[in-house]
Amino acid sequence: MLYLVGLGLSDETDITIKGLDIVKRASRVYLEAYTSILLVDKEILEKYYGREVIIADREMVESASDDILHDAQNIDVAFLVVGDPFGATTHTDLILRARSLSIPTTSIPNASILSAIGATGLQLYNFGQTVSMVFFTETWKPASFYDRVRENRNIGLHTLILLDIKVKEQSLENMSRGRKVYEPPRYMTVGQCCVQMLEVEGMKGEGGEGLGGVYGEESLAVGAARVGGRTEKFVSGTLKQLCESDEVLGGPLHSLVLLGRRTHELEHDYVREFAVDTEVWDRIWKRDYEGQT
Amino acid sequence: MLYLVGLGLSDETDITIKGLDIVKRASRVYLEAYTSILLVDKEILEKYYGREVIIADREMVESASDDILHDAQNIDVAFLVVGDPFGATTHTDLILRARSLSIPTTSIPNASILSAIGATGLQLYNFGQTVSMVFFTETWKPASFYDRVRENRNIGLHTLILLDIKVKEQSLENMSRGRKVYEPPRYMTVGQCCVQMLEVEGMKGEGGEGLGGVYGEESLAVGAARVGGRTEKFVSGTLKQLCESDEVLGGPLHSLVLLGRRTHELEHDYVREFAVDTEVWDRIWKRDYEGQT
Repeated sequence: MLYLVGLGLSDETDITIKGLDIVKRASRVYLEAYTSILLVDKEILEKYYGREVIIADREMVESASDDILHDAQNIDVAFLVVGDPFGATTHTDLILRARSLSIPTTSIPNASILSAIGATGLQLYNFGQTVSMVFFTETWKPASFYDRVRENRNIGLHTLILLDIKVKEQSLENMSRGRKVYEPPRYMTVGQCCVQMLEVEGMKGEGGEGLGGVYGEESLAVGAARVGGRTEKFVSGTLKQLCESDEVLGGPLHSLVLLGRRTHELEHDYVREFAVDTEVWDRIWKRDYEGQT
Repeated sequence: MLYLVGLGLSDETDITIKGLDIVKRASRVYLEAYTSILLVDKEILEKYYGREVIIADREMVESASDDILHDAQNIDVAFLVVGDPFGATTHTDLILRARSLSIPTTSIPNASILSAIGATGLQLYNFGQTVSMVFFTETWKPASFYDRVRENRNIGLHTLILLDIKVKEQSLENMSRGRKVYEPPRYMTVGQCCVQMLEVEGMKGEGGEGLGGVYGEESLAVGAARVGGRTEKFVSGTLKQLCESDEVLGGPLHSLVLLGRRTHELEHDYVREFAVDTEVWDRIWKRDYEGQT
């Protein structure tokens, strides 16, 4: 049996009782370590589980999945995924490969950022499609997120924006020379995301909201850090304000929610507690959000 | 401290290690028992936790929340919620009330149907807003879901439809006579949901998809039962076919996903495994979904 076990969002104690039981008795245990990360190291997990954990990087999962699945017709293999097992496409792919090898599969759900983001106080019913933001470079600024945010905002919905992480990446130079030397991990911050969003709006839109754009410097948003963890932190404000929020938010992982206009009074009451500047928040809320449908 | 502890979706072993630790040491433990249910009884939870669990029905949470919060400035109170603590609006409300009483709060995330539905193989990035379907009566057929499904389908997105549950409801007669006699619990099935959806399409649309309607008898969907549980079951087919799927799906809880046209090949490969009739599925997929953007 192949078990896909969700680990939740924060530390070693976020695994479920059912999940931990499987980890303890599986023949091999892999940890998927490139679409998301826990806030604790592999060593802490190993100590907690009382056993070895094999790190499965992108290369292994995408090109050596048969190693992971080896003999799983006869033995139990646990594949651990931060958050919920179905958060990333890769895992669907792994299950399809298991199916084609007649290996039965079971998944153990856990918290995902897609639902845990409800801790901002924003109603999950008011969210549209989720988008991702990648690190821009000088020459590569993919803006497909922009059209999807537009679709959400056209119908008044919030957008959860998941932020890029770069783990075990090679520099172009090392890659071209075939050197397996990896850069330090990088995690996009809410500040970087807001800067990139405003940059794209500047290129694609016509000067922001109300002028043909999708959003603007005064659009309201909530920055989230370490959701579900003991040091969880939220900051709400305008996109412009959140460009400067990294220090308040602290370490990774970060996510961002851009508000839609279709809001509920309870959302307002809840989210304004996190405002960088309550006066600004209230003024813009009243002007652009309150009572909109 | 008020702890909102997510219980996950299925049985007593879906709680996290962190959550169980809190339940074991809290002074009082409440179980929210009207927006969703676990597949096991309160007695099993009490035995597993080794302590008493107080059932919090809608009446208690909405009008006697101060009892729940009593003395939580000084002691720990655990409020258990099936799924994730932020799945229902009510809990946001409870936290706001705690805040106003200067009671600190912490939430322990867990699996929610909103992310666990990824087990259908449908990509969570391709979902729009989530809607709810309530039990229709002869005279009350609320159709607000219809416009939201339209919004999702206009931009090619899947829609998760959460199905009504009726727990501790009074008949009109008992209510009017003030008798606290309650009806047996009812859980909407995928079949009932599909029948109601087609009924509304018949009233509001103009004969289904392609003719001014939002969806039709041949729209593809996936019925899900007991997601995340050991007896989890999926059935895919047309809305017409799924009207008859209750026997195959088995007991509660059920949910439904109506597919959007913006699909990924991996989704196709995964979901067709669950098809009532693979020939029908493939024909409609090819005609209406494949390669659409």
